[in-house]
Amino acid sequence: MPAVETLAFEVIHTSKKSRARVCKIHTPHGVIDTPNFVAVGTNGTLKAVDNSIVNEIGLQLMFCNTYHLMLQPGTEVVKNAGGLHKFINRPYPIITDSGGFQVFSLAYGGVANELKGRGTKKTDGSVLKITEEGVVFRSYRDGSKVFLTPESSVLAQKDLGADIIIPFDELPPYHIAKDKLVESLHRTHRWEKRSLDTHLENPRGQAMYAVVHGGIDRELREISINYLKDLPFDGFAIGGSVGKNKQEMFELLSYTTENLPKDRPNHLLGIGDLPSIDFSIPLGIDTFDSSYPTKAARHGILFTENGPLNITKAIYAKDYSPFSEDFSFAYLHHLFKANEITGMTLATIHNLKYMVRLMERYRERILNNDL
Amino acid sequence: MPAVETLAFEVIHTSKKSRARVCKIHTPHGVIDTPNFVAVGTNGTLKAVDNSIVNEIGLQLMFCNTYHLMLQPGTEVVKNAGGLHKFINRPYPIITDSGGFQVFSLAYGGVANELKGRGTKKTDGSVLKITEEGVVFRSYRDGSKVFLTPESSVLAQKDLGADIIIPFDELPPYHIAKDKLVESLHRTHRWEKRSLDTHLENPRGQAMYAVVHGGIDRELREISINYLKDLPFDGFAIGGSVGKNKQEMFELLSYTTENLPKDRPNHLLGIGDLPSIDFSIPLGIDTFDSSYPTKAARHGILFTENGPLNITKAIYAKDYSPFSEDFSFAYLHHLFKANEITGMTLATIHNLKYMVRLMERYRERILNNDL
Repeated sequence: MPAVETLAFEVIHTSKKSRARVCKIHTPHGVIDTPNFVAVGTNGTLKAVDNSIVNEIGLQLMFCNTYHLMLQPGTEVVKNAGGLHKFINRPYPIITDSGGFQVFSLAYGGVANELKGRGTKKTDGSVLKITEEGVVFRSYRDGSKVFLTPESSVLAQKDLGADIIIPFDELPPYHIAKDKLVESLHRTHRWEKRSLDTHLENPRGQAMYAVVHGGIDRELREISINYLKDLPFDGFAIGGSVGKNKQEMFELLSYTTENLPKDRPNHLLGIGDLPSIDFSIPLGIDTFDSSYPTKAARHGILFTENGPLNITKAIYAKDYSPFSEDFSFAYLHHLFKANEITGMTLATIHNLKYMVRLMERYRERILNNDL
Repeated sequence: MPAVETLAFEVIHTSKKSRARVCKIHTPHGVIDTPNFVAVGTNGTLKAVDNSIVNEIGLQLMFCNTYHLMLQPGTEVVKNAGGLHKFINRPYPIITDSGGFQVFSLAYGGVANELKGRGTKKTDGSVLKITEEGVVFRSYRDGSKVFLTPESSVLAQKDLGADIIIPFDELPPYHIAKDKLVESLHRTHRWEKRSLDTHLENPRGQAMYAVVHGGIDRELREISINYLKDLPFDGFAIGGSVGKNKQEMFELLSYTTENLPKDRPNHLLGIGDLPSIDFSIPLGIDTFDSSYPTKAARHGILFTENGPLNITKAIYAKDYSPFSEDFSFAYLHHLFKANEITGMTLATIHNLKYMVRLMERYRERILNNDL
């Protein structure tokens, strides 16, 4: 298929053993083969690896955060620089979120703790006000008040110019009363509709994925899918709390993906640890973003065929066997022990290459009906 | 000239206007064209830039610190890994120091303050004892006592296997009584002779540069040169305090280089700011190492044809003009503002490329008798 003006979706093959599927998402900046891992470059760069190297590694989609880019350098700057692709030197597909996730997850004391249900912390005060119109929050950079609405979020994402954009949504905490969750869900639906309307006034080749909400309540997830699938969204992202442990997450995802329209791509937001990937792909997940592979690398956790290893451990101090064609385990261990940034860089490149190969293998297995 | 077994030195041309000269230093790992800048990779890597990139940039000589590598990962590890070139993935020339500089400069409260004569701080207790035999110091890593002698320093440098190694010397502080400086100088000479003897027992293709001492006392510098030039050192490094300001340094260097034998290469230790380079090259300095270009880069100071600029300044926030073929000033500014490591990496690569081009231009000017 030649270069496309906007997103086009092809299902190449669905496994005979599961809902796992191999697809091609065509975008104005190239193809995304799925299932695929989406690296997170919050501020327009992956941590510790320059985009010129990321481009070489073959990561087909990069996730940038509108919330962070709005506060620094400002979406106006990115627009005037010629858009995100040009600004950050990435000629390949980019997806941006709406900013809602960061606004709410920072307020609720961190996704890792709250989303997984470890705490009931409500807010640290950074979300000042939620109204039908939108959200007032305090900038983490300078403490100033920022007002974010479905319209302003989408216009910010128009300035950024990513291939795939996300409507503005609320991220309710895991611990929430049902009536509050229902209220949040319907407001989020109204916000998504307003986001879509703003987007469609001036699509400019961008595609918009709806965000399915409803927390871990199946009934609400079904309501969410039924509402969103009838709107002209280009795909579906699975957002909100998906459970406090892997079992809850598996059941919720299984139910959700079963009910998602199959003719459009889906994306699992913010989940990318290897066990979760392994059970999500057979459920039919197409793409998923996560900072885990890069973050783990910066802490010396390296993905290998035999499971993750911690390069900072003493057993690698004298391991002269080749880690790559360029250097040994002992050298990478040394760089971490000497607190050298290049250790983080080399480890990150390794984990990214691992993810690229891992995804290739998943696609091969699906094509062979072996998943 | 084909690959050499050990250092060979060719003077290509000496300017008709100054003592500036273009030479070729042939080593077992390739040629060093001089005058040239030597990048510092203390722990076996430059800060924030992986050696595979450094290799591409064309930096012909890299400086690694024996003191740091002795404490982490240990020179035995480097030896067993196949030597420094293989361990750190650098097939090009490397120079190591003796460890003496770090032992004494860390003890005297930092070179920048003391060597430049801003303080009279004697020791922070990390140098525990100086005897004729050597120095006992406390490891900055774990507080353990380490004993370093001319013999152990050279054997450590044999383990590392750099192309050019340095004899063990004492670095007296700038503020020192003449009798103490004389005492230190003669002990350093005895240490250098012992270092040379240890080296010559097993040269293994390595070359050793003597270190000329004597502080800012011309008479002592002359004594030092006269003593060292009759020994079979392969070249000369200029060490010790060279003055508390640029004028004092210029006069001392002028006097020193005038008296150095012209048939062997010289190296100015630890000086690499652009104004010092500019007056040192016409004095006949061949190589000089400095962490300044890489350190400045990590603080956002970028070298340009029009002088250094500070990319963190607000004037670059909306400067969409190209900084490189890949990105704009505004993007690099943004990376620094967002505290992204990749900002440091891209700035470091820029300053290194600048130094490589700057040195090429100095060599051209010398060949044209235009310096």
